[in-house]
Amino acid sequence: MRVDIDRKILAANDELAGQNRARFKGAGVFVLDLMASPGAGKTSTILATIGALRDRYAIAVIEGDIASKVDAEKVRAHGIPAVQINTGGACHLEAAMIRRAVDTLDLDAFDLIIIENVGNLVCPSDFDLGENAKVMILSVPEGHDKPYKYPNIFQVSKAVILNKYDTMGVFDFDEPEFRGVVASLNGQAPIFPISATKGDGVAEWAEWLAGRIDACKAGEQA
Amino acid sequence: MRVDIDRKILAANDELAGQNRARFKGAGVFVLDLMASPGAGKTSTILATIGALRDRYAIAVIEGDIASKVDAEKVRAHGIPAVQINTGGACHLEAAMIRRAVDTLDLDAFDLIIIENVGNLVCPSDFDLGENAKVMILSVPEGHDKPYKYPNIFQVSKAVILNKYDTMGVFDFDEPEFRGVVASLNGQAPIFPISATKGDGVAEWAEWLAGRIDACKAGEQA
Repeated sequence: MRVDIDRKILAANDELAGQNRARFKGAGVFVLDLMASPGAGKTSTILATIGALRDRYAIAVIEGDIASKVDAEKVRAHGIPAVQINTGGACHLEAAMIRRAVDTLDLDAFDLIIIENVGNLVCPSDFDLGENAKVMILSVPEGHDKPYKYPNIFQVSKAVILNKYDTMGVFDFDEPEFRGVVASLNGQAPIFPISATKGDGVAEWAEWLAGRIDACKAGEQA
Repeated sequence: MRVDIDRKILAANDELAGQNRARFKGAGVFVLDLMASPGAGKTSTILATIGALRDRYAIAVIEGDIASKVDAEKVRAHGIPAVQINTGGACHLEAAMIRRAVDTLDLDAFDLIIIENVGNLVCPSDFDLGENAKVMILSVPEGHDKPYKYPNIFQVSKAVILNKYDTMGVFDFDEPEFRGVVASLNGQAPIFPISATKGDGVAEWAEWLAGRIDACKAGEQA
């Protein structure tokens, strides 16, 4: 819901996000805000990323959903600490929610915190959580035209994951057109085609993320 | 963005929605608000519905998107009047936007207006547009667990379309579990499995809709 009071809400959020960012920096933890439509494969991508990186980094997950705790339970089943946030109706996470979630974690014990935002291609892109990087997932079944309709989320993402890439043959997805539009919106973001459930492409995405985590630990601008 | 001022915004919206509803009733036109995630197949379902019903009813379409006019162009290419609303960032349509769009149409000339809401499983369910029925689409690739995470949209829908049903073999979608959860949230809504692009199941969905349109024209409560 974008209304006239937006600027005020966003300014208050930005202030809290700045406090979160300072805390993360002090603890030397890299924080990833993962955004996507409902059903694009956020939780599967998190589980695949954990599988690729858990031997190198201590990882925790913050799960954001309107309702339910099914995603946090899925993550905990893999032996990874997970905090569930239920927004009670809000279509995105805000910095204040992240602060409360982080209060339940020993930040110094972790190298990487992955935040799963609410399934939504719109509002999550507007809210700074204090993260080091926002990354989005588009899934092949959603179609190659999504950057035309939801340009902002493509613009704020440091990388774009193209999930369910193994179903490319089932859907009418024009990959060259997709890459062209994404490049026109955001010339910096690499695109990682993956199949989170089958594992294809996950190593390349995880290596990119590892590079960011290492840079963060070395005190460089992430 | 659900914030403390919500009630005030929703009350203002409800008043305008009531005015829209009176206008629709006066013109004898049935208005459908179609809601879904990005890429679930809203536009394809609209085109399939037009194909099934255009010989019986005069149809117009109102397209809601953050940005772009690609969907309205797709609909017009089929010879159907289409009005594009660009919300400029808002993650849902509101009654005021519908009023402005309707001002450009000769309501008396139409039997059915289909509104394509912004791709989002959250906020569109909160906003009355003055429609006769809200209907949602879930697509098979999104997964059977979505009613747990986005219960409200399932609760307010008069029918649930399960699109991309032809890809059931490709994805791990538990249809009995899905039907059970939907029934627990909303015992009234029929579920229509369809493939909008291939045409399977569209006739059953279109007949249900035709029944509602005819009841509306007969002056019954839709």
